[in-house]
Amino acid sequence: MSETGLFDGVLAAGPVAELVGDRAWVQAMLDFEGALARACAEAGVIPERAAEAIERCCRAEEFDIGALGADAVGIGNPAGPLVRRLTARVDPEAAGYVHVGATSQDVIDTAAMLVTGRALAALRVDLQDCAALLARLAEEHAGTVMPGRSLLQQAPPVTFGLTAAGWLGGLAAALDGIDRLRAQRLAVQFGGAVGTLASLRGNGIQVLGSLARILDLAEPVLPWHTERSRIAETAGVLGQACGAVAKIARDITLLAQTELAEVSEQGPPGSGGSSTMPHKRNPVAAVLAAAAAAQAPGLVATLLGAAAHEHQRAAGSWHAEWRPLTELLRSTGSAVHWLRISLERLEVRPHRMRGNLDLTGGQLLAEHVAIELMAASHGEIGRQEASDRVAACCGRAESTAGGLADALAADPVIGEFLSRDRIAAHLAPATYLGSAEAFIDRALTHWQPRS
Amino acid sequence: MSETGLFDGVLAAGPVAELVGDRAWVQAMLDFEGALARACAEAGVIPERAAEAIERCCRAEEFDIGALGADAVGIGNPAGPLVRRLTARVDPEAAGYVHVGATSQDVIDTAAMLVTGRALAALRVDLQDCAALLARLAEEHAGTVMPGRSLLQQAPPVTFGLTAAGWLGGLAAALDGIDRLRAQRLAVQFGGAVGTLASLRGNGIQVLGSLARILDLAEPVLPWHTERSRIAETAGVLGQACGAVAKIARDITLLAQTELAEVSEQGPPGSGGSSTMPHKRNPVAAVLAAAAAAQAPGLVATLLGAAAHEHQRAAGSWHAEWRPLTELLRSTGSAVHWLRISLERLEVRPHRMRGNLDLTGGQLLAEHVAIELMAASHGEIGRQEASDRVAACCGRAESTAGGLADALAADPVIGEFLSRDRIAAHLAPATYLGSAEAFIDRALTHWQPRS
Amino acid sequence: MSETGLFDGVLAAGPVAELVGDRAWVQAMLDFEGALARACAEAGVIPERAAEAIERCCRAEEFDIGALGADAVGIGNPAGPLVRRLTARVDPEAAGYVHVGATSQDVIDTAAMLVTGRALAALRVDLQDCAALLARLAEEHAGTVMPGRSLLQQAPPVTFGLTAAGWLGGLAAALDGIDRLRAQRLAVQFGGAVGTLASLRGNGIQVLGSLARILDLAEPVLPWHTERSRIAETAGVLGQACGAVAKIARDITLLAQTELAEVSEQGPPGSGGSSTMPHKRNPVAAVLAAAAAAQAPGLVATLLGAAAHEHQRAAGSWHAEWRPLTELLRSTGSAVHWLRISLERLEVRPHRMRGNLDLTGGQLLAEHVAIELMAASHGEIGRQEASDRVAACCGRAESTAGGLADALAADPVIGEFLSRDRIAAHLAPATYLGSAEAFIDRALTHWQPRS
Amino acid sequence: MSETGLFDGVLAAGPVAELVGDRAWVQAMLDFEGALARACAEAGVIPERAAEAIERCCRAEEFDIGALGADAVGIGNPAGPLVRRLTARVDPEAAGYVHVGATSQDVIDTAAMLVTGRALAALRVDLQDCAALLARLAEEHAGTVMPGRSLLQQAPPVTFGLTAAGWLGGLAAALDGIDRLRAQRLAVQFGGAVGTLASLRGNGIQVLGSLARILDLAEPVLPWHTERSRIAETAGVLGQACGAVAKIARDITLLAQTELAEVSEQGPPGSGGSSTMPHKRNPVAAVLAAAAAAQAPGLVATLLGAAAHEHQRAAGSWHAEWRPLTELLRSTGSAVHWLRISLERLEVRPHRMRGNLDLTGGQLLAEHVAIELMAASHGEIGRQEASDRVAACCGRAESTAGGLADALAADPVIGEFLSRDRIAAHLAPATYLGSAEAFIDRALTHWQPRS
Repeated sequence: MSETGLFDGVLAAGPVAELVGDRAWVQAMLDFEGALARACAEAGVIPERAAEAIERCCRAEEFDIGALGADAVGIGNPAGPLVRRLTARVDPEAAGYVHVGATSQDVIDTAAMLVTGRALAALRVDLQDCAALLARLAEEHAGTVMPGRSLLQQAPPVTFGLTAAGWLGGLAAALDGIDRLRAQRLAVQFGGAVGTLASLRGNGIQVLGSLARILDLAEPVLPWHTERSRIAETAGVLGQACGAVAKIARDITLLAQTELAEVSEQGPPGSGGSSTMPHKRNPVAAVLAAAAAAQAPGLVATLLGAAAHEHQRAAGSWHAEWRPLTELLRSTGSAVHWLRISLERLEVRPHRMRGNLDLTGGQLLAEHVAIELMAASHGEIGRQEASDRVAACCGRAESTAGGLADALAADPVIGEFLSRDRIAAHLAPATYLGSAEAFIDRALTHWQPRS
Repeated sequence: MSETGLFDGVLAAGPVAELVGDRAWVQAMLDFEGALARACAEAGVIPERAAEAIERCCRAEEFDIGALGADAVGIGNPAGPLVRRLTARVDPEAAGYVHVGATSQDVIDTAAMLVTGRALAALRVDLQDCAALLARLAEEHAGTVMPGRSLLQQAPPVTFGLTAAGWLGGLAAALDGIDRLRAQRLAVQFGGAVGTLASLRGNGIQVLGSLARILDLAEPVLPWHTERSRIAETAGVLGQACGAVAKIARDITLLAQTELAEVSEQGPPGSGGSSTMPHKRNPVAAVLAAAAAAQAPGLVATLLGAAAHEHQRAAGSWHAEWRPLTELLRSTGSAVHWLRISLERLEVRPHRMRGNLDLTGGQLLAEHVAIELMAASHGEIGRQEASDRVAACCGRAESTAGGLADALAADPVIGEFLSRDRIAAHLAPATYLGSAEAFIDRALTHWQPRS
Repeated sequence: MSETGLFDGVLAAGPVAELVGDRAWVQAMLDFEGALARACAEAGVIPERAAEAIERCCRAEEFDIGALGADAVGIGNPAGPLVRRLTARVDPEAAGYVHVGATSQDVIDTAAMLVTGRALAALRVDLQDCAALLARLAEEHAGTVMPGRSLLQQAPPVTFGLTAAGWLGGLAAALDGIDRLRAQRLAVQFGGAVGTLASLRGNGIQVLGSLARILDLAEPVLPWHTERSRIAETAGVLGQACGAVAKIARDITLLAQTELAEVSEQGPPGSGGSSTMPHKRNPVAAVLAAAAAAQAPGLVATLLGAAAHEHQRAAGSWHAEWRPLTELLRSTGSAVHWLRISLERLEVRPHRMRGNLDLTGGQLLAEHVAIELMAASHGEIGRQEASDRVAACCGRAESTAGGLADALAADPVIGEFLSRDRIAAHLAPATYLGSAEAFIDRALTHWQPRS
Repeated sequence: MSETGLFDGVLAAGPVAELVGDRAWVQAMLDFEGALARACAEAGVIPERAAEAIERCCRAEEFDIGALGADAVGIGNPAGPLVRRLTARVDPEAAGYVHVGATSQDVIDTAAMLVTGRALAALRVDLQDCAALLARLAEEHAGTVMPGRSLLQQAPPVTFGLTAAGWLGGLAAALDGIDRLRAQRLAVQFGGAVGTLASLRGNGIQVLGSLARILDLAEPVLPWHTERSRIAETAGVLGQACGAVAKIARDITLLAQTELAEVSEQGPPGSGGSSTMPHKRNPVAAVLAAAAAAQAPGLVATLLGAAAHEHQRAAGSWHAEWRPLTELLRSTGSAVHWLRISLERLEVRPHRMRGNLDLTGGQLLAEHVAIELMAASHGEIGRQEASDRVAACCGRAESTAGGLADALAADPVIGEFLSRDRIAAHLAPATYLGSAEAFIDRALTHWQPRS
């Protein structure tokens, strides 16, 4: 879980990785200790001067992380060793006032919330950048037709703008989840040995309130040392965010296939290209976004599976949370970061989209002709007949010189209600986009206040 | 996924099971079709009379579920066969107006939202009943002392009321999640073949709005056929709810151990008892609640893992959602239902709690004496010295006739500041409960508006 | 978990579904009871006549599954009610000899092994059919060139035969796992209340041995009521099998894309086709195989997560296994069954493969020319130079009349060592397949003894 | 994923952590490159001298891991940068012969197998130590009676020896899985760009064979770049091992509860003790073993969920494996290591076991009396009557001066067939242990060849 590593460039990309690293954890624990001292001073539980002395020593860079990690073996968590070392650093008069009323879990749980909050703030920036890029694509490509695809088979047309708007929708929902978490659910944990704050005598709740205010975290109704809904909800939000990334990344890798070539990632030299295969543009960023996002379901399961904390302190489930929570933040951060890079590199190719649309000679639009036939006949031709006639023409189209349009025009019934020109018009993808543009507008309007 | 079965009494208990059964799914699909006809009539897309004819036929009891399931094999989902059969049932004039503008996924996704909404409504009732039972326990047992336990070792005292309040906190958070889902995230899905509603020509968005209103679901900004954050969020909320149940169920089974016997389930004859072992009271309901809750993490992972729906219709990930979503609703329903039964059966045994507190001869309260010693000495005795002196007495207590109180009183320094009587008072669990009562009050106040 | 349902045609396809249904479970439980009576008679623990009487009554069709399920609520499992009803059915003289020495978990765990064994036998048949189909494809298409694809970008050529051989390899490994399970790990469970078989006095181990022999299950070293490695290993093997299916199904859906069209599923009318879009061939079977296989990771996680069975009988983890084990067998059965259908329907299109290979004008083969250049120059041209020269030609190819071959021949150095004809030959995909054919042979030879 | 960190002392304990660290990965990749050069030289593909030059440079300590990690961003994996740097280090004549015929995935997949093999070798040692400790406990405590427990309620007696033998069974199964993996499934990966080894012209299979021999890995039938059953099987085996650990760790924490106190961990000062609560002995090692083991289900799910590698190189699923595979090895290593420590620290307390057995006044043995009554009456008293009579006595026992034995002796029918002395004997736990001792012998015999 330390700062850099062999796979970290690839799997722990973006600003979140450092914010959930060991140094960040230690600083968050020290932030708790400093704030606790301050809160105790405010409540008159410890002298003001002691609080100042303690706060001055709460700087992570002065602690040896490897030594803390090694010492953690004794009691099974790094909070104890950190408190011991912090105590040794503050001047002797203040030493007795370190960590008053608190237990190891208070330190680590509150640190987890601080780490999560800081990671989410950074994640939010990357997510918003992605969303802004998508909003622009949605707007720019509102008229760029491309084949819809269902079960990976071509289907009636959509626009790339609508596709981007759909991607945006997933990110907007993820942002809402993150904002809700940050505003409401990241709370200080402070309960002492068993959640009664007994050692603070009557001052527990006042100190709790001050702690929350100082650390800019929510004040919980109760200590939540063994009520882990905050962890579960964090897991759910991150899992959802990764799902939104996974969908976009999958689509990009599919659209970038050599045979489709509707988008490509135009990265810097050395990113995804191949000298001997100039056609080749590996969508590396989308691939890595997908890989990072794929970590989430299992990590969420681990966090949810650890929910049953026994009594007032769990016999294993608490320790079981640390790594998956950190990994989930890191993986989500990496997924969103690579997505941003992929979107920044994204080259959209309208002519390829159009070319792919034409591969099937207008058959994707056959449904349109049937609908217009029904309308033009004012109900004389029912849905079944319209559909059957058009289908028959589709079957004949390949062997008809002028293709589908001619085959349709040659049908006596269709020809009666629709001219060759109108048929051709109905076979134009741009005429069969329904509410695509309106949906894009709605998506942009919905996104606006979140941007 | 059908209505009853060998393991269903045990694993699919409570009202949710039926609400997510095959019949309920079919009715929800028919509700979509009926509402669609109505919405189309409102928009002038189909005749009013056709809508009425269609609505009249949308009754699940008239459809053969086994046959639908068998026919689903062809296109890979049961919506197609259902539409075909529904069409065959409505009078011929209306037959052409069934399922206008919609695709199979519209039917099943909207049905999934309806099924989820109905299941959540029932789940909410059971959850609230659980919460109300816990609120009462929290209130009644605000003064019932029991050992705190950390890593399954006894620790300073808590009250059973505080324990119940902590359990309540998890359920209140679960309820908030459910309410948020129901109010904001359960939305109609309507997009046609590729999400453009092209076959409705210009009327798509109006029909979408009417559909949402008629079905009492949210109107989505965009079709969400391949933007699955609603499914992810539903999964997260249910996973969180199961986690809250798992914690309570675990605690109950632990407190009910023969050796602790602080609670027991007093079920009807045949529930958990044993004629030859009258001491035995298997906490069957809590055990089954735990078993049901344990299904959630894996099911949530499956749903999150299916997020990457390709393009405009997924090649597998959509079909992959149906069973885990249904199972997750059913398992959560069963978990909460068994928890309710467990809580209804719960007999709390204050004398056993007290007896277990006394097993360690007051040592759980040693910390209290140290704190009071520091206070009484007005800082003359520091934390370290207080702690060391008390610890030394703890070591001597077993071999001291009068136990810990005498050992403490015999210490020259402790004895100087604290009388034998005050020491004895500080060793009384009820004097070392800190903010327990205040926390219970907060929990009840927090719960009140949700009750 | 009952026999048929709305989604079962799609999600519970194939012969396994029925073999893991409620009826099959009840029969397996009764098989245990019958075998137990027989084993007890062999050991002289009960009269021969009683064993016969009990065996005669062990027929699932005579028991009301719904009633068993409902009664199971009392003690939390259906074994108790089944034993009660069985006892009521045998003649009074034999009634006292039903279920001698056994506990509920013995019945259900042994039934789980029988159900698993029967399901695996059926699964094996479908898997072998899949493998045989793949072996034939591998053989037939040993010379059918197609583009290799890396990160969904075209890469140097492979053959479809090699692709099929690779798919076969995954299935062969899955079969090995299944065979190992069946031969070694499916074992009878028999331990009585706490695993000592105390109520059988000295006869426990003899009865255990007979039970295993009669039921054709392995005899375990110890009762395994709370040592669940058999369940874990079963989960692992099924998860692996689903992974093998998922890979093949994903590839088929990708190769079947409209733009690639290298394979298609040619199902019966109504399967995946569309009348208005005759080009369209939804690969429904592969899609459903993928959807079923996607259930596995979460279900495996649930089973592994339930491993920590407390003491001599778990407080929830045992009950938590029933549904995921059944679902995992059913989903794997469905995945393999749909894969078989997909493979049976598979139409391979060599001309499309070849056409796609040619899309990039020979650039996939550029590496080949570089290698041959190095060889022809006897080391005079090093790897870097060869690669650079070829790459430069690739860059010029599009604007060269005769394409890549001409561009390469026009390079002074390449032209010196390789004639225009040899260059053209090196650009032929069939000349750059390396060990593809040998690998296919190896795969077929490896598969042979498993077929 | 680097070598040490804040939580690593606790969560990445034992020898495995270093063996799966970045340095170990780099060395394994270099081992591949060295062996590839050697294999190519053997096949005459490259000069002997070049192989020697390359081999000399394959030392991980000469490479900057952070720089490799940073460079990996370009192509999305660290193999490319490593090959580049290795090439730069070997003398110019040999530089052209580095990495001949291989692709990045060959390097990393083979390295993954080497890393896994080395980790499993270390894991095996710790596992065997655990098993040996358990074998000794099983033997020593073959006669140490303790209460059986079912659903956490006391049940008829077992011995601690039998409990330990059951634990041993889980570890023996885990060892068998590891041995199978190591002997059969850890295989070299070598296929070149698309699995044909085309760039090696006719020498591919020979080089493959040599590579396997040199690296002491199995030679696969086919390249397995997108056939991931080896990864799935590794995941399954590790998941199973963690399940076995989880069961033992859970039992230890339960038996160590203050109220049971049947075992305790006697660690060095500072490990789990509390100065003010001398009774307190947190079973820290078992707790951390449980926490590490709890990581497995989610990680296994992630690995299984990544099985569907597309075509000849996956678009994300391959990269998605690296971290969970490493984490799973590390977590399993930590779980087994902490278990070993827990078992080394384990103090078994027969008198507490016996005391807990007596808590219920002999009722755990009531079943024994009923059985002996039936036997002594030679069938005159049937099972139901025997059971009813004994149960009635149990109900009266508490109010009977001499307790259960007297109550039983006072029953006219029981008293007729069983004397007061025989009744007392049947109430002695040691007389109702059935096949416990024989089972222990079987477990030890089964374990012997694995020790």
